[in-house]
Amino acid sequence: MTNVITSKDNQKVKLAASLKLKKNRESTGLFLCEGSKNLEMAFKANCVKIIFTKIDLKLPKNCEAEIYKVNDEIIDKLSSEKNPEGVVFVCEKIEHNIDSKKYNKIVYLDEITDPGNLGTIIRTALALKYDAVVLSKNCVDIYNEKTIAASKGSIFFMPTFYADLEEFKDKTIYVSSLNNNPIDLNKIQKTTNFVLVLGNESHGVSEKSLSLATYVVKIDISDKIDSLNVAVAAGILMNYLA
Amino acid sequence: MTNVITSKDNQKVKLAASLKLKKNRESTGLFLCEGSKNLEMAFKANCVKIIFTKIDLKLPKNCEAEIYKVNDEIIDKLSSEKNPEGVVFVCEKIEHNIDSKKYNKIVYLDEITDPGNLGTIIRTALALKYDAVVLSKNCVDIYNEKTIAASKGSIFFMPTFYADLEEFKDKTIYVSSLNNNPIDLNKIQKTTNFVLVLGNESHGVSEKSLSLATYVVKIDISDKIDSLNVAVAAGILMNYLA
Repeated sequence: MTNVITSKDNQKVKLAASLKLKKNRESTGLFLCEGSKNLEMAFKANCVKIIFTKIDLKLPKNCEAEIYKVNDEIIDKLSSEKNPEGVVFVCEKIEHNIDSKKYNKIVYLDEITDPGNLGTIIRTALALKYDAVVLSKNCVDIYNEKTIAASKGSIFFMPTFYADLEEFKDKTIYVSSLNNNPIDLNKIQKTTNFVLVLGNESHGVSEKSLSLATYVVKIDISDKIDSLNVAVAAGILMNYLA
Repeated sequence: MTNVITSKDNQKVKLAASLKLKKNRESTGLFLCEGSKNLEMAFKANCVKIIFTKIDLKLPKNCEAEIYKVNDEIIDKLSSEKNPEGVVFVCEKIEHNIDSKKYNKIVYLDEITDPGNLGTIIRTALALKYDAVVLSKNCVDIYNEKTIAASKGSIFFMPTFYADLEEFKDKTIYVSSLNNNPIDLNKIQKTTNFVLVLGNESHGVSEKSLSLATYVVKIDISDKIDSLNVAVAAGILMNYLA
């Protein structure tokens, strides 16, 4: 059964809107998401709690989410898109197994701060069949709305969690850096049980990551430009090592 | 000599602000750019006309640009960043040689509509030593402010222009597509005189591009997700073919 909400001061709407802030996502264990394509993927991950929609939806059998028909004003309040599709929903955060031994092909992000980059890297990792995306504590929030938008639903399937790189030191660790005497990609030995480390958009990887590196690697680039975009560099390295 | 402008209704400021619209960029042959790093690269390309700044700048000898000291209000009017660095400048569009025979390694973009993707692809092309980025007529504007921001100054060095793919039919044409019976990357024959074609973010490459393909190629991705981000796919393919 679908109920109707007409006021943007409704408690459910207020709860959903509060999830735009990280502290509220942390205290509730919930996050906000939007779009029918993302919803389809969230249903598969079985984590949808509340749906606010002004469009007709294709719902799975035995859908247990609360569903509310809402107006443009409520969609505009909840959406972070310029031209919202018309469906915004609340999900429960997904708990992932954080046992490092469970995963063979890992991408480790060392202080990635741009949510779009993070979402794009999670999308690429899922596409290229990596096992997990692990984040240093100072990375941007996985459940930031821009991360979720850029991830194109991959956030629902890709094991993603925060941990220290040290927990993976039994694996081959490839650290991407243009400094610190890196070697060219085609000169490294490939393995099947490894971590690929990418660093911050401005200042690169941390000293700690460098100290744990089995190989410091680089993509050979022109001297006309400082660096590649980190999500592009991640894609090239992930594809090469996969 | 540096002059001071205090009013945001000043004619030079109005001219600069008008360049946020494509039609005004087209009628004047000028475009707007910002940030000291971009300015440094624009100086090397010798295309800077007017600078508005509230910060101290390192200027090249014989700098011929007009320079105006301005206040926060004017910077805010001209900037498209949330936290502007404090320098915005007007450049003359760069004329590139559009003779297809001059270039060996080309990226061709078939209706790319996201300016961030376009800027990132131009940045990657410069980094990976491609010779030109060529755009179909229905691509987003090269001089869109978000394209310029994402290009990180590469726009000043990378030959970038609009043309039909047909003009390049004497080269090997690799068309990236997940449909139309693509073959895996590692099964193609690499050449040194080629065009790599990437398609629209939603509906991929056009029928016309497909009809001109020497090879339709794909990156092997998981069935858990529809596609890679186009700038990431471009990076992986550019690196593989380079």
